Amino acid sequence: MTHWSEVEQSSAYVKVLDHGFVGLVDVMGDDSSIVQAARTSYGKGTKSVSEDRGLIRYLMRNFHTSVFEMIEFKFHIKLPIFVMRQHVRHRTANLNEYSGRYSVMTDEFYIPEQHRLQSQSVLNKQGSGAQLGGAELEAVHDLIKHMSTESYKSYLALINDPQSEDYWPMDGRQGLSRELSRIILPQNNYTECYWKIDLKNLLHYIRLRADSHAQWEIQEFARALAQFVKAQCPIAFEAFEDYMEHSMTISRLEKNLLQDVIKSSNQAGISFEECYYIMKQSADNLAVTYGMSKRELTEFETQWQLTAS
Amino acid sequence: MTHWSEVEQSSAYVKVLDHGFVGLVDVMGDDSSIVQAARTSYGKGTKSVSEDRGLIRYLMRNFHTSVFEMIEFKFHIKLPIFVMRQHVRHRTANLNEYSGRYSVMTDEFYIPEQHRLQSQSVLNKQGSGAQLGGAELEAVHDLIKHMSTESYKSYLALINDPQSEDYWPMDGRQGLSRELSRIILPQNNYTECYWKIDLKNLLHYIRLRADSHAQWEIQEFARALAQFVKAQCPIAFEAFEDYMEHSMTISRLEKNLLQDVIKSSNQAGISFEECYYIMKQSADNLAVTYGMSKRELTEFETQWQLTAS
Amino acid sequence: MTHWSEVEQSSAYVKVLDHGFVGLVDVMGDDSSIVQAARTSYGKGTKSVSEDRGLIRYLMRNFHTSVFEMIEFKFHIKLPIFVMRQHVRHRTANLNEYSGRYSVMTDEFYIPEQHRLQSQSVLNKQGSGAQLGGAELEAVHDLIKHMSTESYKSYLALINDPQSEDYWPMDGRQGLSRELSRIILPQNNYTECYWKIDLKNLLHYIRLRADSHAQWEIQEFARALAQFVKAQCPIAFEAFEDYMEHSMTISRLEKNLLQDVIKSSNQAGISFEECYYIMKQSADNLAVTYGMSKRELTEFETQWQLTAS
Amino acid sequence: MTHWSEVEQSSAYVKVLDHGFVGLVDVMGDDSSIVQAARTSYGKGTKSVSEDRGLIRYLMRNFHTSVFEMIEFKFHIKLPIFVMRQHVRHRTANLNEYSGRYSVMTDEFYIPEQHRLQSQSVLNKQGSGAQLGGAELEAVHDLIKHMSTESYKSYLALINDPQSEDYWPMDGRQGLSRELSRIILPQNNYTECYWKIDLKNLLHYIRLRADSHAQWEIQEFARALAQFVKAQCPIAFEAFEDYMEHSMTISRLEKNLLQDVIKSSNQAGISFEECYYIMKQSADNLAVTYGMSKRELTEFETQWQLTAS
Repeated sequence: MTHWSEVEQSSAYVKVLDHGFVGLVDVMGDDSSIVQAARTSYGKGTKSVSEDRGLIRYLMRNFHTSVFEMIEFKFHIKLPIFVMRQHVRHRTANLNEYSGRYSVMTDEFYIPEQHRLQSQSVLNKQGSGAQLGGAELEAVHDLIKHMSTESYKSYLALINDPQSEDYWPMDGRQGLSRELSRIILPQNNYTECYWKIDLKNLLHYIRLRADSHAQWEIQEFARALAQFVKAQCPIAFEAFEDYMEHSMTISRLEKNLLQDVIKSSNQAGISFEECYYIMKQSADNLAVTYGMSKRELTEFETQWQLTAS
Repeated sequence: MTHWSEVEQSSAYVKVLDHGFVGLVDVMGDDSSIVQAARTSYGKGTKSVSEDRGLIRYLMRNFHTSVFEMIEFKFHIKLPIFVMRQHVRHRTANLNEYSGRYSVMTDEFYIPEQHRLQSQSVLNKQGSGAQLGGAELEAVHDLIKHMSTESYKSYLALINDPQSEDYWPMDGRQGLSRELSRIILPQNNYTECYWKIDLKNLLHYIRLRADSHAQWEIQEFARALAQFVKAQCPIAFEAFEDYMEHSMTISRLEKNLLQDVIKSSNQAGISFEECYYIMKQSADNLAVTYGMSKRELTEFETQWQLTAS
Repeated sequence: MTHWSEVEQSSAYVKVLDHGFVGLVDVMGDDSSIVQAARTSYGKGTKSVSEDRGLIRYLMRNFHTSVFEMIEFKFHIKLPIFVMRQHVRHRTANLNEYSGRYSVMTDEFYIPEQHRLQSQSVLNKQGSGAQLGGAELEAVHDLIKHMSTESYKSYLALINDPQSEDYWPMDGRQGLSRELSRIILPQNNYTECYWKIDLKNLLHYIRLRADSHAQWEIQEFARALAQFVKAQCPIAFEAFEDYMEHSMTISRLEKNLLQDVIKSSNQAGISFEECYYIMKQSADNLAVTYGMSKRELTEFETQWQLTAS
Repeated sequence: MTHWSEVEQSSAYVKVLDHGFVGLVDVMGDDSSIVQAARTSYGKGTKSVSEDRGLIRYLMRNFHTSVFEMIEFKFHIKLPIFVMRQHVRHRTANLNEYSGRYSVMTDEFYIPEQHRLQSQSVLNKQGSGAQLGGAELEAVHDLIKHMSTESYKSYLALINDPQSEDYWPMDGRQGLSRELSRIILPQNNYTECYWKIDLKNLLHYIRLRADSHAQWEIQEFARALAQFVKAQCPIAFEAFEDYMEHSMTISRLEKNLLQDVIKSSNQAGISFEECYYIMKQSADNLAVTYGMSKRELTEFETQWQLTAS
């Protein structure tokens, strides 16, 4: 498996987590490829669209996504297995992974830093919350490290590696096959892969995986990938940030409510906020009136600064 | 090829356009399948999510799309070739189409009704505008009909069909192969297919193809498909309408502007609209200030009823 | 739409059929990319595989196909619509096609050359047979050409193109929208696209579409694509020819029969052929004995030169 | 997570390995669906293909694979994570997996039975060889079991589960979040999923994963899946066995050699085997003559019983 020291000199590689990395191995196309493909679709009809930046932003804004498939990236990525398990769910990519059936697995394991040793979130069933404190922090850190070390020792013993510390005191031992020995390795063990994906699907990946609801470790990989995209296709990436990553989707229900508040504000000549609270008091249950769940109404209020005393 | 008269008795078939149809041949799963899949992903952790409807709406709202892949529909569709050419771009579906290499093509052609004989849109480079008038309407209709008839006559002549009106006055004629003869048939000729797709991708299809920017003819097919979805998965379909089909996406730029108008309205105690026009007048160019194109600002004003005199 | 004269100077373009072409616009990777990806999968375990050519051939022979996904081609293709309809069925590719909703369609139509004006095959329900003769050949050729010309004239009339020969003698005419006018154009009208695909899927395309059972016109495109692959990845392409394109698949049934003939030949010390005929005569029905259809036995005999007098 | 005892009464579930299972949750279509789709493609042209079995076998034999996409299976599968990692590479399936971010992972781990505790294969870099013997066998078994137990104890301690044996002697402990705690669990820990796939891709899966080169554990799952396919689509499955699973592919090189031996046998009137050895002796290097590697020639000899003294 590739060690960070073998690639750190290359400007195409960035380190991620304690032993992982993302390297841009090859790329096909840039912002101009999007324009080229779009002009083919539109043919002579678009001669009036004079500026490439405007065209790219228009395409992103209107979800004409197929033109963004015309750019292809190939990355070399080293990542913990539990991150790989999320990574591989993006089915539109091409992937070649290091094989633990053919080769010996690395002794590198992801050990979270202190700031990442967080308790279960109380709000989010799938997330992490506050950082652990004092003694627990230390104990948790030590236990993760200890289990990683112990697992690797056992792995070396199973394959009967000559460098195993637990050299077995048995004559004629053969070692268990690699494909079986690896099954005791924990999911913070590192693996690596070549990963090839087009820009449209890569942006979709970044949107999902750099999001705060994703596990923090894969966010780190998504952010590293994003830097390469930004450098290669700066216009498309800015359009992505404006129209996709940092856009918001308003449901039919929220749209109805927002429009009603604005309309009432205009008609009554009072502020947006004041108007909202009048509507809320006069309704039996504003959420129900607009078909929302209680949570949706709370999120609506947070979004539009309606959390007044 | 299947004629409408062969399927019209079946409640699983609805007619679309003049000779086309959509029939639901088979289906696997319903709303409960979404819940089943979701509860597997969430395991014991979600016992507190007590209500199926709430869960389905939550999943749709938060783009947990993979659970919607667990329902599968199979349709029998008859459609003009130019619609088929758009239909087939949805690559996640399975498709078996009638083959004009094996079999003789039908003599059915799509002839648009009067309301659909529209001029080129002046606003939308890819769309249709006002209905044609009087003499032109009639001439256009007749020409489409005439070319369809003439093409089919020529097709029968090419394959040397015994029922061809243009029976060729030549001895020993053999007829051109079907795979070549069909190339002169126009794209309003009908074809048919079996088409299988999961709910997630079918909803994506409906969102794109029932949209007013799609060609009207494929909209008709999308609306027919939607009726079958609505009957099979009423809760998921309503959630789709609320959170996807009739939702709106607000770009980072628009969000910034909207929030600023609301905040100013609240601070100054004046109406949303009044506040907006003060901001617009005091800025050199409000669109530029917020990074928008002129068109985006116009759309913003239309959306939020800021089109005052 | 791009005319051949605009690209014919470029060595990256080859002409196909009368007005079509295939151009290699961009490519990512070559034979060495396959080796690079394979060595990652195999890690340290494959240091003994010393030679790249041997490794590539080994991978092809053993269907380790994912490494062939690491090379990506982007083509610019101009092709008749009936070929496009077959082309687009390859769902793993990325595609941007010229849009007849935005832009005026070209006046170029595929008119088959004389050698391609063939009658329906008597053996193959989906294929073409012998070339048509004399008067029929000429009549067929003229009819295809005539219908193409007439269709385009009608198209120009429908969109009310100022250069239409059939300038309409009506005041205030507007022209039918492009998206509707195009529906009368026959399927030998040309379209064009950008098409991006990885090597694995491109080889699969070539295998299916350069095959003699495919329609001859798409074979021509497949052969043009193959030339670019051969130039870019000569080792992988040769391996493809040896192990896939020109390989043969022998069913369990045929394998059993072939092995039995060889074994009997060895035991009896007589020739393969002689042995086969003894077996055939002594069996009631050799096809049934081996679970084959009559057609399969005939193909077996053809394959192994058992068609003796 | 679902325990075997909860599903073992159901005839739709079969046990796989020590704690895993495969259950058929839902299915759409059977052999008749293949015929239905095929007859649509072929239309009136195939009225002469009278028999369904013959048609299905014809379609399989000639790789008309799209009709096999018209049948859909949905399975409920419980499997070790290292098998899941191979399973998920089949990108054409739909998948919902149990989430270790939301829910507590199970205490079930795959512990190989004695016959599966094999040494590294000497022939196959990715495979297993002879069963381990005596003391080593026992030590290996105990170590895998020990590490599984220890890992789960540590996991419970990390999430601060009240039932943890290693109840931590610390005040105010909170427990590490589930998404982080799980990273120390080894890859023989069980997970479960809903998995939906069409027949074509399922047969491809079975072909690759029931093959002797696949890891034995996933073979067991592939064989369980195959039983459900066989019961649901017996004709298609038999065709699959005859024309795909137990077929053999002969390269261009092998085909050339095989044909030459047969031709020589016929011409000289001597047996196949005798003829082969004459050819081998008279050639400098028969492998090189036919463009084969040494290994390919050896495999050729094994295949055709040419391993005589």
